[in-house]
Amino acid sequence: MLVPRVWSSVRLGLSRVLSRTLRGWPSGEGRGMDLSGIYPPVTTPFTATAEVDYGKLEENLHKLGTLPFRGFVVQGSNGEFPFLTSSERLEVVSRARQALPKDKLLLAGSGCESTQATVEMTVSMAQVGADAAMVVTPCYYRGRMSSAALIHHYTKVADLSPVPVVLYSVPANTGLDLPVDAVVTLSQHPNIVGIKDSGGDVTRIGLIVHKTRSQDFQVLAGSAGFLLASYAIGAVGGVCALANVLGSQVCQLERLCLTGQWEDAQKLQHRLIEPNTAVTRRFGIPGLKKTMDWFGYYGGPCRSPLQELSPAQEEALRLDFASNGWL
Amino acid sequence: MLVPRVWSSVRLGLSRVLSRTLRGWPSGEGRGMDLSGIYPPVTTPFTATAEVDYGKLEENLHKLGTLPFRGFVVQGSNGEFPFLTSSERLEVVSRARQALPKDKLLLAGSGCESTQATVEMTVSMAQVGADAAMVVTPCYYRGRMSSAALIHHYTKVADLSPVPVVLYSVPANTGLDLPVDAVVTLSQHPNIVGIKDSGGDVTRIGLIVHKTRSQDFQVLAGSAGFLLASYAIGAVGGVCALANVLGSQVCQLERLCLTGQWEDAQKLQHRLIEPNTAVTRRFGIPGLKKTMDWFGYYGGPCRSPLQELSPAQEEALRLDFASNGWL
Amino acid sequence: MLVPRVWSSVRLGLSRVLSRTLRGWPSGEGRGMDLSGIYPPVTTPFTATAEVDYGKLEENLHKLGTLPFRGFVVQGSNGEFPFLTSSERLEVVSRARQALPKDKLLLAGSGCESTQATVEMTVSMAQVGADAAMVVTPCYYRGRMSSAALIHHYTKVADLSPVPVVLYSVPANTGLDLPVDAVVTLSQHPNIVGIKDSGGDVTRIGLIVHKTRSQDFQVLAGSAGFLLASYAIGAVGGVCALANVLGSQVCQLERLCLTGQWEDAQKLQHRLIEPNTAVTRRFGIPGLKKTMDWFGYYGGPCRSPLQELSPAQEEALRLDFASNGWL
Amino acid sequence: MLVPRVWSSVRLGLSRVLSRTLRGWPSGEGRGMDLSGIYPPVTTPFTATAEVDYGKLEENLHKLGTLPFRGFVVQGSNGEFPFLTSSERLEVVSRARQALPKDKLLLAGSGCESTQATVEMTVSMAQVGADAAMVVTPCYYRGRMSSAALIHHYTKVADLSPVPVVLYSVPANTGLDLPVDAVVTLSQHPNIVGIKDSGGDVTRIGLIVHKTRSQDFQVLAGSAGFLLASYAIGAVGGVCALANVLGSQVCQLERLCLTGQWEDAQKLQHRLIEPNTAVTRRFGIPGLKKTMDWFGYYGGPCRSPLQELSPAQEEALRLDFASNGWL
Repeated sequence: MLVPRVWSSVRLGLSRVLSRTLRGWPSGEGRGMDLSGIYPPVTTPFTATAEVDYGKLEENLHKLGTLPFRGFVVQGSNGEFPFLTSSERLEVVSRARQALPKDKLLLAGSGCESTQATVEMTVSMAQVGADAAMVVTPCYYRGRMSSAALIHHYTKVADLSPVPVVLYSVPANTGLDLPVDAVVTLSQHPNIVGIKDSGGDVTRIGLIVHKTRSQDFQVLAGSAGFLLASYAIGAVGGVCALANVLGSQVCQLERLCLTGQWEDAQKLQHRLIEPNTAVTRRFGIPGLKKTMDWFGYYGGPCRSPLQELSPAQEEALRLDFASNGWL
Repeated sequence: MLVPRVWSSVRLGLSRVLSRTLRGWPSGEGRGMDLSGIYPPVTTPFTATAEVDYGKLEENLHKLGTLPFRGFVVQGSNGEFPFLTSSERLEVVSRARQALPKDKLLLAGSGCESTQATVEMTVSMAQVGADAAMVVTPCYYRGRMSSAALIHHYTKVADLSPVPVVLYSVPANTGLDLPVDAVVTLSQHPNIVGIKDSGGDVTRIGLIVHKTRSQDFQVLAGSAGFLLASYAIGAVGGVCALANVLGSQVCQLERLCLTGQWEDAQKLQHRLIEPNTAVTRRFGIPGLKKTMDWFGYYGGPCRSPLQELSPAQEEALRLDFASNGWL
Repeated sequence: MLVPRVWSSVRLGLSRVLSRTLRGWPSGEGRGMDLSGIYPPVTTPFTATAEVDYGKLEENLHKLGTLPFRGFVVQGSNGEFPFLTSSERLEVVSRARQALPKDKLLLAGSGCESTQATVEMTVSMAQVGADAAMVVTPCYYRGRMSSAALIHHYTKVADLSPVPVVLYSVPANTGLDLPVDAVVTLSQHPNIVGIKDSGGDVTRIGLIVHKTRSQDFQVLAGSAGFLLASYAIGAVGGVCALANVLGSQVCQLERLCLTGQWEDAQKLQHRLIEPNTAVTRRFGIPGLKKTMDWFGYYGGPCRSPLQELSPAQEEALRLDFASNGWL
Repeated sequence: MLVPRVWSSVRLGLSRVLSRTLRGWPSGEGRGMDLSGIYPPVTTPFTATAEVDYGKLEENLHKLGTLPFRGFVVQGSNGEFPFLTSSERLEVVSRARQALPKDKLLLAGSGCESTQATVEMTVSMAQVGADAAMVVTPCYYRGRMSSAALIHHYTKVADLSPVPVVLYSVPANTGLDLPVDAVVTLSQHPNIVGIKDSGGDVTRIGLIVHKTRSQDFQVLAGSAGFLLASYAIGAVGGVCALANVLGSQVCQLERLCLTGQWEDAQKLQHRLIEPNTAVTRRFGIPGLKKTMDWFGYYGGPCRSPLQELSPAQEEALRLDFASNGWL
């Protein structure tokens, strides 16, 4: 079990690496980190004047921390990371680590467009408490992001990261699927422990599981909409925006899958699809934050250019939850 | 004028309906037809001079007929139906029905671009032995194929078809996904019994199952690559190109899913993904037919403009099977 | 076997070729056919019961025949050709040829999905009066339509066609761009005289003009929206849906371009963009036909599944013409 | 809080505005700024250790400064701006302004993902010498980038920018086309002077010119591949990657268009298409920089994850220039 090893995650820099070594991991590699479980990709709360509201972040995490999540993702796509400054990004990681129980993994989105910036951000996030770095594919020059370029990028990051690296493919945002052949090659790197795949293509997920089976490589579904199917095909968990508001239900779905209660799992999964689509593809982060307000968390505004929902959109959002019995 | 012809067709269709009744199905509508199971979408064999080779078709069906399939699809996308004349299309249905055991369902792809032609083809195929019509979305004017247009199209076809209708969505060929809201509306038609969905989006498949749960509406996965995941989320079967060559394995996967042996199912599913992709998206019908030649069936040439594989492609195809232990 | 039928067709086609010779064109190949000018891609009129209304077709052509068009296209995408039977397709060509003045070119869309069917349709259309065949890319198996496959297809068609062949690339309908390298190769075929390119990418159009400059190969813009730009970059004319309703204006734009009055051309072009988009991408054939009704032609209904415009769409369509001073 | 910082920035910006006034432009708003002409989007030179090489930047600008360009763009997509730190971004602007003759416009790409960061970057770039800000569409949350969101974003930026703003739409990188209706609305803002459109859709460019004709709004083509066509349809200039290596030829093309020598313009345009595609879509910035090395400028390496060309790619790049007579 990982739990004791996570214990001293707060320590900084080299002592962090050292502590990992003392905790039984070979230094400089991630093998042995067990990612299995559910993670909410937490939102970044802002004040009315668009400052990061760290207090609200902590409040949300305290509430979410009581649920049986494996851990938390900060600065996934739902964390509005492209809108944060570098220092805000680090502060969010640091605050999250402090706010969370010691036994919860903290995966921090450290991706930047350049390899160099990604390395620096990854190292810094590890220093302030990230247990692993979740690294989104660079995408502005997607026409040049061949497998070779992406393998080079991730290898460099993983070589230099003091914490394990999780690949992150999210084509809805990046317009880019991390190619399977690149994933397979990267799975052999001792410091790359898995992938969060948000594309929703279970054939691809199954293939990745299959072709990395000789590696200690773990796949996390990137959304609650295909969580059951991902478990069925070999994923070990999920990073699910919906877990920010229906956290216990998503964890219940996990349990049903893990204990082989597929019939009940299916019924629950069915009722989660529309709410999940509503807070992701359909209404995005503004929809997710609005729903958080309904469910007793702090959602609040997004940073511009993300706009708040219109009344009609808000009504449609509510219906997606109500018609499935969640409101 | 079309109307009289259709009516006479419907009349002629009645004896067909009668025979369906005799075989234990409710007359006059599709409800009650149990689609559950595996179907190979059979290829259309051609001679060296590109004539339909009905003899080889029958030989293939005789061999395939010994496997525990629920039935057979003729003139799905793998049947090269856009390359067949109307009379060839009907003759293929007729020959298939005669070649197959009585207890095997025969689903015939009757889609044309116009509603009128689709109705006529559907009626005619029913007359020559189709148990159900599988109707692909019209697609040349995809920019105008709104939900309303597609609902109108399918309603008309289902109203006039003497046999149950199965919707067919295959975006890789049509560039068009039959919208979920249209599927839900159409699921209420008494003569529409299900959908073959080849898009591979299990979130969508789950949503369709969920939103049609009060109807007697059945979902078939359109490919072996996501068959396990589709079963897990509520599909009742699959139309799988791969079943033309690895038929018993696909049926075994079905059994493992239906009997809850998910671990073994997963292992088998994993080994089927690459071969499946090879005979569908990667190498298409030329790949499927080449593989049929290897596995003791008649594959033979495709009609032009489909080209046969290059030696390098053939080698890659072979590797996709060999590396998974099938050759 | 196909061959004898084709050969007899080719034989029958000879009288057609002969008549072409009498009209001053070189026999036996397309070189020398001057495509330059404007062509309306005429719609196929239907009665209220969806029969082809040949009388209305002739009426429309008589009216359009008085305008300074180079010729006419029948069974381009606007002709609803995928909804016509083979005999309707031939009858439309035959009637059009008879209705049109002798000096107007008749380009007939003869594309089918299979090479064999396309050859037969091309030969038959030539027999009943087509001056050239406009052959759309096959598209249902677009994943397999490599340059090699398309070159093979068109070469076969051009080899066997008694009239010159015009390539036709219309990605909005086919999801497929005829690759530039294939166009360049095909431009060397003695019986391929040009391309109608509806994609709207003038960089591509310029490149095609440039790379076929040593051939007698002509490019027609496939839409009025980029007609001026196409002339500027080397196209010799256009097949423009909008010419069905604003025929004299499109011809005026041609004249302004050909006589170097670019400033006036630009003003006119600007005013044609929105109406053109309205009758193509925005509202499709139902929009075009509705507009024809307004402008003194017979538009009438489309065949199903194409639906007529809603009142709101009709209002938006009207505004696209009115706001540019055309209504 | 952001506001005071912005206001102080605006205040500091006033001296810049003053200097603009002294150079003959109306103060406080962009109207009156004449954008017409050709701009190279300059690359950012890096040393072997991936540091910005400001000396090489200055050398390149000194050489390019002798050509009849209207001005220069720094930190367009070719400037690798997503790979630069904020301070590098400002330093590049500052150095460029100092290196360039006073009569050359300096357009600086100031786009960031958040509105707030874009405002701050815009103000800062104006302070260090940018004559106008070229603002790319935010794109990570493209699913939420409605016209309303983009109008809000650009309005805020233009309100607070001390220098005129140029919209920048580059779908190949952003996966997002700035919608025409948003462009038309934004064209009415007194501090928005034009758009750089890199999409290559001349129908769209013509429509933008047409629908903003009552505004003092200018369109720049975003690539040399459709420069002639853009001039023909009403653009006033172009930002052309190719101008970094074939600068005098691109300026010659401009002159031919402006003086109505369309025949010669066409011939020249034709010869520029393949080289242009080679240094943009085909081989990207690595291709452009490699070509700069050939043409007497400093190209050098890109920042990772952009990879240098393989020998085969380099050969293909060379051929694209050689076969058109440029090497």
